[in-house]
Amino acid sequence: MLKAKVYVTIKQSVLDPQGVAVQGALHSMGFHEVGSVRIGKYMELQLDTEDRFEAEARVKAMCEKLLANTVVEDYRFELEG
Amino acid sequence: MLKAKVYVTIKQSVLDPQGVAVQGALHSMGFHEVGSVRIGKYMELQLDTEDRFEAEARVKAMCEKLLANTVVEDYRFELEG
Repeated sequence: MLKAKVYVTIKQSVLDPQGVAVQGALHSMGFHEVGSVRIGKYMELQLDTEDRFEAEARVKAMCEKLLANTVVEDYRFELEG
Repeated sequence: MLKAKVYVTIKQSVLDPQGVAVQGALHSMGFHEVGSVRIGKYMELQLDTEDRFEAEARVKAMCEKLLANTVVEDYRFELEG
């Protein structure tokens, strides 16, 4: 069993309205030190395999095909276990 | 300037329907090695402060009050820079 931790973030050049909303909420709650906020996704996948090399390629394919929209998002992942 | 990286995840005991849906989608795309999928949030906050000790307490407060729903979610964060 391997565990993949996948991080999907909006590209720096793309506007993140959810981040802007959270920033505004934090300001209105008195957290004035908060500058830009970017919001992304964090996913944990259990993989029923021990082949780390193959898993690397498979998780990359999952990210490209489903987990991330590579037009506007970046992704990175780690394998554990 | 410090950067906070916040990870919000659904508690293990709580059902994650989004994760179940992604798991189903991955299976139907041929990624049969995928076991459980858990989906959370990943946030990057720029903090206009150099005081790491204070920032730690402030980010904890932000998580408790806004960023995480501590009834059903766990959170952890790192400070960088």
